[in-house]
Amino acid sequence: MTDSKNIADAYIALWNDADADSRRARLSAGWSADARYADPLMRGEGHDGIAAMIAGARAQFPGHGFALAGTPDSHGPFVRFSWTLAPASGAAVAAGTDVVRLDGAGRIAEVIGFLDGAPQ
Amino acid sequence: MTDSKNIADAYIALWNDADADSRRARLSAGWSADARYADPLMRGEGHDGIAAMIAGARAQFPGHGFALAGTPDSHGPFVRFSWTLAPASGAAVAAGTDVVRLDGAGRIAEVIGFLDGAPQ
Repeated sequence: MTDSKNIADAYIALWNDADADSRRARLSAGWSADARYADPLMRGEGHDGIAAMIAGARAQFPGHGFALAGTPDSHGPFVRFSWTLAPASGAAVAAGTDVVRLDGAGRIAEVIGFLDGAPQ
Repeated sequence: MTDSKNIADAYIALWNDADADSRRARLSAGWSADARYADPLMRGEGHDGIAAMIAGARAQFPGHGFALAGTPDSHGPFVRFSWTLAPASGAAVAAGTDVVRLDGAGRIAEVIGFLDGAPQ
């Protein structure tokens, strides 16, 4: 359970990181080179594709941040956790649940994301 | 959305089907030959492996049935839906959420399952 919490925390920290070079370093350290991401609104593949996708998503929500919601759970190579997206002060504008598949080295190989509430 | 409801309904019907031959026919029709299933309690691979897994799980809960909970959602090849397991009359003994990946022919290629409530 600690591992799944660490994975979820690192994932949230990546999305919240305001520095593009730092986000790229987080991807290189924690994600497979051929990692894939897909949710209802966007998709990306590989470190470059996912870095560009995150930069684009962050640009749509300036001043907002992601936060972990609830407790991550896991089995085998899979981790599931929920999140919210909210401005610095104010109610969440979006929420979702992501399922992550880890590779043999414990890096994120795939993210399948779902939205739990529509943006306001 | 209709498609995701059909996938979820067929999935629930497979688990609730009391006849082993009929379950095997449902797997052949709706699941990839090399389909994989994994949740926190069990895993199975291929029609034979998944058929044996379902038979074993059903034997542990005689007289119980699965029911869809809420509305399935989907994007790309992925479908997500929640379920409950309950006796013919009485409260649910388990609940969970499954994420399904469909193959190019619309058959289930992978199921990643999570429990949303521990069995009583």
